[in-house]
Amino acid sequence: MRWRKEEITMSKQVKLSQEEGYTYVDGGVCAAKGFVANGLNCGLNSDPGKNDLGLLYSAQPCDVAAVYTTNKVKGAPILVCKEHLAKNGNQARAVIMNSKNANTCNADGVEKAKEMCRLAAGQLKLQENEVLVASTGVIGQVLPIEPIRAHVEQLAAGLSKDGHAKAENAIMTTDTVPKELAVSFEIDGKICTLGGMAKGSGMIHPNMATTLNFITTDCAIDASLLQKALSEVVRVTYNCLSVDGDTSTNDTVLVMANGEAQNAKITKEDENYRVLYRALYIVMRNLTRMLAKDGEGATKLLECKLSGAPDQNCAITVAKSVIGSNLFKCAIFGEDANWGRVLCAIGYADASFDIEKVDVSLGSAKGCIAVCQSGAGVPFSEEEAKVILSEDEICVYVDLHQGEATAESYGCDLTYEYVKINGDYRS
Amino acid sequence: MRWRKEEITMSKQVKLSQEEGYTYVDGGVCAAKGFVANGLNCGLNSDPGKNDLGLLYSAQPCDVAAVYTTNKVKGAPILVCKEHLAKNGNQARAVIMNSKNANTCNADGVEKAKEMCRLAAGQLKLQENEVLVASTGVIGQVLPIEPIRAHVEQLAAGLSKDGHAKAENAIMTTDTVPKELAVSFEIDGKICTLGGMAKGSGMIHPNMATTLNFITTDCAIDASLLQKALSEVVRVTYNCLSVDGDTSTNDTVLVMANGEAQNAKITKEDENYRVLYRALYIVMRNLTRMLAKDGEGATKLLECKLSGAPDQNCAITVAKSVIGSNLFKCAIFGEDANWGRVLCAIGYADASFDIEKVDVSLGSAKGCIAVCQSGAGVPFSEEEAKVILSEDEICVYVDLHQGEATAESYGCDLTYEYVKINGDYRS
Repeated sequence: MRWRKEEITMSKQVKLSQEEGYTYVDGGVCAAKGFVANGLNCGLNSDPGKNDLGLLYSAQPCDVAAVYTTNKVKGAPILVCKEHLAKNGNQARAVIMNSKNANTCNADGVEKAKEMCRLAAGQLKLQENEVLVASTGVIGQVLPIEPIRAHVEQLAAGLSKDGHAKAENAIMTTDTVPKELAVSFEIDGKICTLGGMAKGSGMIHPNMATTLNFITTDCAIDASLLQKALSEVVRVTYNCLSVDGDTSTNDTVLVMANGEAQNAKITKEDENYRVLYRALYIVMRNLTRMLAKDGEGATKLLECKLSGAPDQNCAITVAKSVIGSNLFKCAIFGEDANWGRVLCAIGYADASFDIEKVDVSLGSAKGCIAVCQSGAGVPFSEEEAKVILSEDEICVYVDLHQGEATAESYGCDLTYEYVKINGDYRS
Repeated sequence: MRWRKEEITMSKQVKLSQEEGYTYVDGGVCAAKGFVANGLNCGLNSDPGKNDLGLLYSAQPCDVAAVYTTNKVKGAPILVCKEHLAKNGNQARAVIMNSKNANTCNADGVEKAKEMCRLAAGQLKLQENEVLVASTGVIGQVLPIEPIRAHVEQLAAGLSKDGHAKAENAIMTTDTVPKELAVSFEIDGKICTLGGMAKGSGMIHPNMATTLNFITTDCAIDASLLQKALSEVVRVTYNCLSVDGDTSTNDTVLVMANGEAQNAKITKEDENYRVLYRALYIVMRNLTRMLAKDGEGATKLLECKLSGAPDQNCAITVAKSVIGSNLFKCAIFGEDANWGRVLCAIGYADASFDIEKVDVSLGSAKGCIAVCQSGAGVPFSEEEAKVILSEDEICVYVDLHQGEATAESYGCDLTYEYVKINGDYRS
């Protein structure tokens, strides 16, 4: 049984920073006006206390932006999402989703994914093309469609404003805590809301996307501008996240905008666009941090704040190399200030820069300590380092001292528990 | 204490296949005529039963070929090797080596590495430039030179034909078994020998080199041809090895040829060259397998035999992606035939090919079972898979069915023990 309620603790929750003009609100994907959701156990998962089938629905048609995995192996649901969005002018009304089975590498995958859309469309009085689909779980096992068919009426009948947590529960796999977040903000004197939910927690090394992520907003915005915002924000949030270096086959991020906030539709990159863009960044960055902190087996969130890079590609590449190092991840699990491994990971990053200018510090809520200057070690107090690393959110500050570009990356420690979880995932 | 004698078991030894014309012989780096070695504990390692200082010496000048890490952070010993080989026409007579401290990221690193060469040269009546140097261990801690100075006379005085195992012991870090191998073969009616030793066992993801490796031969060969052979063989052996995805800062492979077998010097790519080339391949491939099987915390050797690729770059890239997947490595530890993770890792490999033609089988000494054909799962017996995966040498066969190129890659499972070892490496 992958769902481990007993392990849910506050320490898995990330610490959120406040930002002027944006207020955190409850409700996840149902926080924005006009969105309802539901989730239930249909029997794909043998634990009746764990949902495995979810539905998200908008009272109005939504403009949709999407990014998907770059893995050559793509889950059948991704192929169907692409087809439906293309046929329907990048609009949709609903998403049906399941966990326990990724519906990937199966000969009948596309047929089953379309059947899921048809089943939902039938209940919601929609066209099949207005429904999107997402699956997560084991790769290469045929998806049983009967349990879904048998429960879709109940699923649709139970759609509600309170259903966001049930839907989130339906997409969770090895996650130990739900990942939901929403913010409200003002555009044109109208209160807008943007909220999202995500599932982790292994096979995470996004490349143009991450795992399953659904974001909803009642803000009115042109679909192509929404796509531009999503693609840019993904690059500095989900794409800077790594739990284990494995890029999933089913990564999907969908953003749905239904316009129910009644603001004048955003059609150019003006101040209103920037306000919405920032809301998307706040939600996606913090969902990214939640995914990292709840990485499979993780006991600590590991962030790298990189500065002084010659350009942003270099900044992102080096920052990702640091949080991707298995050796450094193990050292952080052991609360060992083994900064040589940070420098080693900086050194093998595929980017051009002078290693002899690099400074490294380690920090947390307990303080910050310099461990390396100009590429060489500096004396530091091991006791002080131990105190800093005993926290559950650790930050590595790297300054390349050769430019103005910055980046952040998000990861976690590598633990016994990761190995245990993944030694026998299919059972 | 990193040296765990009690864990040395036969299961960590790889199974060697025989090849006509080549005979395995004892003696490691001392198997070839004219080479002697020694190793002792000088006090860098607090365990007096573990050597930390080694010396390799040739009675005659050697032609030398070398490859080093591509990490931007390079250990000071690498800089000194390059300088000495350049000044001495790619010739050398001796190598001094230590473990416990990598002499990397230290302001005085080059000075200390040169001092090690000077100390050995003084004892051996050589020029400083005739001595090479290699270090492995913790990065970023100043190397104490006094223990080395105090023991170098004893080290040189004890050089002998039997000293190969002592020298190998001196470079081992988290290794649990020694890695030595030698073969004899005939060129021009002369018996030639080529032998080597290597140390693992973490921070292994070679790029043009691997960890520390010393290979000696009494075969006479032009230095530039030796370099050509080394560079080609490295590409398909050490460069196809990954334990944890971390490229070390101190990776060095040295091949020393002293000509004492009295064969006519190999100066062109003739049949004699091919015989030597094959000997180098046999030794380096099996040292690679030994490094993989004794990867930090490993319980199983994991090999990928890839065929049907459109070109060799594609073959190598895909084969390395499979054995580099943390998720698949965990599944192998759990003896779980989770082939979806193999296909996932094939899919995110950075190469161009059609995923829908791919076949995957899992094999060991207990048999072989097809799990995926044309990119989709096929029914197989889980019991049979369990029996196959219970072995300690596992092979994943991948056929891309879109060309003639092949490759092999070498790795190991990811275990609790890896995390334990690396959670607190510095103490």
